[in-house]
Formats: sequence, structure tokens, C-alpha cells
Amino acid sequence: MKNTMAGKSIILRLELLTEQIHFGQLITVITENGGDVIAIDVIQTGANWTVRDITVSASEQSQLDSIVARMKDLAGVRLVHVSDRTFLLHLGGKIEMKPKSPIQNRDDLSRVYTPDVARVCMAIHEDETNAYKLTIKRNTVAVVSDGSAVLGLGNIGPYAAMPVMEGKAMLFKQFADVDAFPICLSTQSTEEIIATIKHLAPGFGGINLEDISSPRCFEIEERLRNELDIPVFHDDQHGTAVVLYAGLINALKVVGKQINEAKVVVCGIGAAGMACSNILLAAGVKELIGVDREGALVRTKEYANPHWTEYAERTNPNLRSGNLHDVIEGADVFIGLSAGGLLKRGDVERMAAKPVVFVMANPTPEIHPDEIEDIVGVVATGRSDFPNQINNVLCFPGIFRAALDCQASTINEEMKLAASAAIASVVTQQELNKLYIIPSVFNQEVVRRIREAVIRAAIQTGTARRIPREFRQAE
Amino acid sequence: MKNTMAGKSIILRLELLTEQIHFGQLITVITENGGDVIAIDVIQTGANWTVRDITVSASEQSQLDSIVARMKDLAGVRLVHVSDRTFLLHLGGKIEMKPKSPIQNRDDLSRVYTPDVARVCMAIHEDETNAYKLTIKRNTVAVVSDGSAVLGLGNIGPYAAMPVMEGKAMLFKQFADVDAFPICLSTQSTEEIIATIKHLAPGFGGINLEDISSPRCFEIEERLRNELDIPVFHDDQHGTAVVLYAGLINALKVVGKQINEAKVVVCGIGAAGMACSNILLAAGVKELIGVDREGALVRTKEYANPHWTEYAERTNPNLRSGNLHDVIEGADVFIGLSAGGLLKRGDVERMAAKPVVFVMANPTPEIHPDEIEDIVGVVATGRSDFPNQINNVLCFPGIFRAALDCQASTINEEMKLAASAAIASVVTQQELNKLYIIPSVFNQEVVRRIREAVIRAAIQTGTARRIPREFRQAE
Repeated sequence: MKNTMAGKSIILRLELLTEQIHFGQLITVITENGGDVIAIDVIQTGANWTVRDITVSASEQSQLDSIVARMKDLAGVRLVHVSDRTFLLHLGGKIEMKPKSPIQNRDDLSRVYTPDVARVCMAIHEDETNAYKLTIKRNTVAVVSDGSAVLGLGNIGPYAAMPVMEGKAMLFKQFADVDAFPICLSTQSTEEIIATIKHLAPGFGGINLEDISSPRCFEIEERLRNELDIPVFHDDQHGTAVVLYAGLINALKVVGKQINEAKVVVCGIGAAGMACSNILLAAGVKELIGVDREGALVRTKEYANPHWTEYAERTNPNLRSGNLHDVIEGADVFIGLSAGGLLKRGDVERMAAKPVVFVMANPTPEIHPDEIEDIVGVVATGRSDFPNQINNVLCFPGIFRAALDCQASTINEEMKLAASAAIASVVTQQELNKLYIIPSVFNQEVVRRIREAVIRAAIQTGTARRIPREFRQAE
Repeated sequence: MKNTMAGKSIILRLELLTEQIHFGQLITVITENGGDVIAIDVIQTGANWTVRDITVSASEQSQLDSIVARMKDLAGVRLVHVSDRTFLLHLGGKIEMKPKSPIQNRDDLSRVYTPDVARVCMAIHEDETNAYKLTIKRNTVAVVSDGSAVLGLGNIGPYAAMPVMEGKAMLFKQFADVDAFPICLSTQSTEEIIATIKHLAPGFGGINLEDISSPRCFEIEERLRNELDIPVFHDDQHGTAVVLYAGLINALKVVGKQINEAKVVVCGIGAAGMACSNILLAAGVKELIGVDREGALVRTKEYANPHWTEYAERTNPNLRSGNLHDVIEGADVFIGLSAGGLLKRGDVERMAAKPVVFVMANPTPEIHPDEIEDIVGVVATGRSDFPNQINNVLCFPGIFRAALDCQASTINEEMKLAASAAIASVVTQQELNKLYIIPSVFNQEVVRRIREAVIRAAIQTGTARRIPREFRQAE
């Protein structure tokens, strides 16, 4: 739905041979096809030619398409390019580098560069921890992807993945004042990715892994967590898990159930499903059943995927087997991270009273919320056009803000649980209801509360290498 | 001299126990030791403590040192840290990431991130060259170092090298609006450096190699130039060479000599000496003699360093041998990239009439310019406190501005020669004299002229993958 919204205005860059085409003819063609000319900008002119940007709006995308088509046929008109507002926002990339202070004279130059910078270099050389004080390491995160599992688009490679990573960097800055830099890798080899990230790590205070396909993402993250002394966080796994659990905390309040008594079915045991299951176990869920293509994962069976075997060891205590429709019987919570349409109304009807249903498959949920709205306790999706959106953007800015501010050596389970509780706490008891269990990404309380809670958890679990003064005084 | 200039003002961050020390006592201590209190900022206060930043200036560094020493002794005073203006400029790093557009609402979010960004990703997936239009690749350069040969400081490693690379990124932006990002590598293995840079290259339009020690820098650059499709430029070599040749063009005008008739001695055949020799040969120098620890490099001798053997093959046509003092006899030009004090007044006296002497060893030149001022045609150094500074900052911003604007696949010899000529051309015939052969880094004509000349050279030599419209119309 966003696409059409974004597509209703375009800019045509046209090179016109002024002897062959009159500007009036152009306008006529545009209006005849249902377009309105919003603006005309002259880019360049020559003796008998001119280059202009013409901003055109229309009520229907189809009208804009026909206008573009007509331009291609017109004699004396060369269509240089067409941009809609989304593409225009991306021209030349979405982020830039900004010096914090200007270099206006020789004195400035001598301080930020040679010869004076040498004293700063030596201060770090004498004590490497000064890198956190005197370089961008203090506030900078690398957003790293190999482009192997981008959004719902799949393996589109490092060039095509950049706009997503740039967008992520924008969100880091906008929501938490974290300086994030996008790095897309031209390799999909696990070992090469690990080596590359280790080699470029010195300038960064944290690594946000993004859109790396499963199962490689597991080993890459685990190895980097062990081999680097800065936080490494695969957002597709842990960001989703943190926000999911935040939503579940409030959903269970709405239906009046306890997490340690709830029967939870997780459908889709990929990277996200694995991480969501882990945070739920850490949060105290006792009966957790994972379901994937081969049905309920159970330790009495053999799996080709070693992650499933290991997963079955830690879950499904009552050894339930069968497919989703079998094991969902009497479940209190359904967590869907699988594919559109997998869940039926009949399944939800067989769940326990006031069922909590999180259908997060993107872009199409496991079941359309409207189909079950009348029989569920709470329903949530990954989409912005329904209530209760489970959105990673709620987590990563605040959790890295906290990690950087206390120079955390890692982001552990306690810090993630604290982040979930902090997000959930933004929705007050008075506000809480089945249509409002999770705050908006634009709610500025979110980052503030995550930061505070996660820093406390980092201090308590000994991963904080710096204790911000406000916490020092508080101890 | 810059150091003391920068050191005359400091900021003391003090944690004061208000029951043990009165603020008046502090001020007394500071003034007694010759300091002036410029500003007092309260950072935080508690029941019986307060944290304050006290800005102190003094005429002598020694006075500031004694004030700092006294603070450490005072009861009830904890010296949290001392910062001078240079260190303050570096707190938290010198650069930040800035979104080009704000994300103020759901509509903005859907354009720069999901779901709309998917259309931009697919446009690049369908045609990879769109990465230059729709991502930061269009204007972004990686400044990469392994910290093995930083300034005159040597092998101080990646953490201590960061302030230099950040400073470089500031200069790129300030002088040429290039978005440069500093990456310091935790490896000094040639193969690992090559692999890492290749893997992170997709998001960048160029690679500026920096402060990588010789001889590894030769293979790293050569391999990357062959294996990447974006410009790779080792500034310590080629930046120095371009600016040196720019200075020489004008120096030879001053003394009225032709470059193809000049006898040139290059002292110090490391990375920079090699690159300077190469550009001089490309510029038409016929008699070029390289001198290093083993004396004049001559093809009749054997060298352990294969680069010297190869160098001797291409230089010293008259097979001069012996040390610097032998071969400098009758030389028109001396290029020093070696070490302080290697050149004697007697040597310069034995050079040809109106000798051109570039003594670029840092921080101490091969000979102090004042020692030979009366007998040289032109003298230049690498220092900012003498006339005629040969400064890389004159080259790298403009040459990468040009390379990015025409999407150059490489920076070749013709482009470097064009850059030198462009820099030299900024000094007009009227302005030219023995004390002014090279423009200031703050002269805004420099980048503009380099850009124009280098893009033309790139187009003529077929390395330009995009022809900016102004050049298209001109052709």
C-alpha cells in the first residue's frame, strides 16, 4: 500500500530539442493523461536544447505510467530519467559524513591533522582504551550485511542491499544519535565475512549484523561474539526477539496469563524463530513447541539441520509431535515467523481461551488479523497497517545507545530481557488494551527507557566497561 | 611549534568534595602558578560534591603543567581529566554520520526503509550501475590504513591511527565535499588487507590507502588496482608525487630550466621516493638518480630489495655510483624524502647554478632552509612554517572529487600529471617567485582546477565511466 502512496508524484527529467517540440505540447500530453504539472525546473540550456525537471502528480499510478510512456514516443524529447519521491530520496545515497568542527585556517588544520594530531595518536598508542574517548569508536556502529537475505527480497547481493543498510544508519542516528555506517560485503563465505569484520572492527564500538541468511548467520555471530571485544548483534534475530517479547509481556497482561504457565507454539524455526524461542525460554516459558516444515520439533526425531536437533533438545518437554494443526491444540500463544496463510481460523479456535496470536510473516501474515479479530485475546503483526506492529526499529537504536554509553563488551540475554521490559513499560496500565500492546517507533520514551534499563543490566552482569556518572552516583 | 600553541589553554575536570575544599582555594592555586581562569562550568553536583570544568590559560606550558601537578595534591580534589584544545577537538571523534533527510513520520520511514526501499533495492539488483545513482557509492571514499607507518610515528597500530584517518575524512569533506569514511584494520598481513578491502568495496566509489608501510604498500595497491573496478590511490606515494611535481613545474620556471634537461637526484627511495621518481620520469626527466642507504642505485649492482633493482633498471642512465655527496655534483634538482640533516651546504654548493632543493623529510628537513637560502634557486619543504610547503592536502580532495564525478575506474599516470599541472597553474605568472611556487591548501581554486583537468584526462584515457554533462556539451 505504501508503494502507490509513494508513486503518486514523479519527476521527469527531459532533454528537449526546442526546434522539434514546444513546451506547450508537453504540458498538453501530461494533462491529457490525467497528470498535474506541479513544478518546472530548468536544469541546463543550450542553443537549441534544454534540460528540464517536470514534477507531475496524478491520482493513479497508471496515469503516471501512461505519461512516461508517451514521453518516450514524443519527437524531440529524450527522457533522461524518471524519479518518484522515494527514488529522489535515494539519489546519491541517504547519508553523508559530517565534520564536527570546521577547518577554517592553518591553526584548525594543525589540530585535527598534522602535526598536532600526533599527540592524540600517541595518547591512544599508550593506552588503547583512549580510543573510546578520542575517536569515533565511542559512538559508531558498523551495519554489516552480505546481501544474502535482504527484507523479503532474498539474496540480492551487496550493491542492492546498500539502500536498506543506509536506511538503518538513518534510523540509528534519528532515534538514538548513534553514528552507524553501512558496509556491504562482496563475499558470502562464512570465514571471509568473519575475518573481514574482525579486521575492520577497531574503529567501531559495535557491530550490527543485518540480513545475513540462515544458518550462516548463527556461526558468524557466535564466532564474532567470541572473538571481538565489542557487541555483535544480529538484528534479524535478536531485535525481533526483543520486540516480540516486549509485545508478549503486555499481551499476557491483557489476557491475564502468566508466561511460565503459558503453552507457546513458535512456527518457523529459522534465524528469527530460533532467537524468539531463546528469549522466551530465558523469560521463563516452560512449554515451548517449535514447528517447521517437518512438523513439531521433538528430541525423539533426527534432523538434517543440526540447529533443529539442538533446538528440540531444549524445547517441547511433553514431546508433542505432528503438524501445526495438531500441536496448536490448547496453546495460549502462537508466534508466527513462517509464511503467509499457514494459520487457519480453525487452528485459532482450537487454542486455549483468549489466545495470543503474533502473525509476523512478511509481507503476508500467517493469517489476516481480520479473520480472527473476534476470537483472539490479542493479535499482532509485523506490518504498520494493523494495530500492534512488532517492529525491530523499537529495539536496535536504544540497545546500541546503551551498549555504547557503557562500553559494553557484549549484549547478553539479561540486556535483551531488560530492553523488552523497557519497551513494554512505555505502554501504561491505563493505556494498555488488545489494540495497544506496543509503543510506536516514534515514541521518544522508548530509547530513553531502553538505554536506562540495558545499562543497568550491563553493569549488573559485568559487561559494562564504563559506568556513566548518573549510574555511578546511583550505585 | 604548533604543539605549544595548542597547549596554552587547558580544561581541568575536577570532582570536588565541598566540605574539604573551597572553590576560592582552587582559584588561588591556579593564579599563584601563573594561570588565568577563563571559564567555569558546573557539570554535576551532589549533596557534598561537585564536578566542574575549569578552563585555564597561561603564557607557558610549564605553568599549566605545574597547575595540573598541584591539583593532584590538593585534598578534596579529584582530577578527572585534563584536556587541551587539541584533545577537546578529538573527544568522541571528529566526524559524525548525518542523514540527508529527516524521518519524521510513518510516511518518511516507509520511503527510506521498509517497505518502499525494496523498490530501490530491486532497481540496483536489476542494474548494478544504479548503485552510483541510488547509494552513497556515488560520493564515498574509504580511507584505509593498517596503522603501520603513521605520520612520523611509525607502526602505532589501528587504534592510534584513527585520529589521522578521521582528520583525513574531514579534509575530504571540507575541501571537496567528498564523504570519506576511516577504516583502520587490525591486520598487517598483505593478503588479509587485500582481501578485506576487496570485501568491503561495494559501498565505496574509491579507496584511499594511507600510512601503510613499504614495501607492503606497493603490492597492496597494485593488486587492488588490478582486482577492483574503483580507483585505489595510496596517498603517501601518489599524493606526495603529484604535489612535488606541481612544485617542480613552477620551481623550474623560476630558475628557467627545462625538465627534460634537468639532472635530478632523489634521496630516499621508499614508497614516496619511488612514486616521486615515477611521476618525474613520466613528466620527461631523463637523468634521474636515486640514492638510498647503499648510495646511488645503479643497475650494475645487486640489491636485496627487489624494488631497488627494478628502480635501478629504469634510472641513472649514466651509471653514476657513490654516495649522495658524489652524485649530487652538478645536479639541477634535489628531492629529499629521507631523513633530517642528510644534506650539507657543501653539497648544495656543488650543485648546478640556481639549484632547486626540495627537502621534504618530516619533521626535520634534510637541511634547514635558512642554511642554504642564499645559494639556492628555490627551496621547498614539507613543513607549514616555511614557504613552499609540499602538502598532500593539495591533491587528494580534488583528485577523488574528479574520480567520483566521472566514475573513474582507476587513477592513472595521465590523471596525476593533469592534477600536478592544475595545482601549478593556480600560481599565476605574475605571482610566481622563489618564495611562492605552490598555492595554499586553503586556496579554493585548487580543487576546482584539479577536478576539471583530471576529469578531462580520465575521459581522454578512457577511464571515465560517466561524462558529466558540462564535459559532454564541451566535447
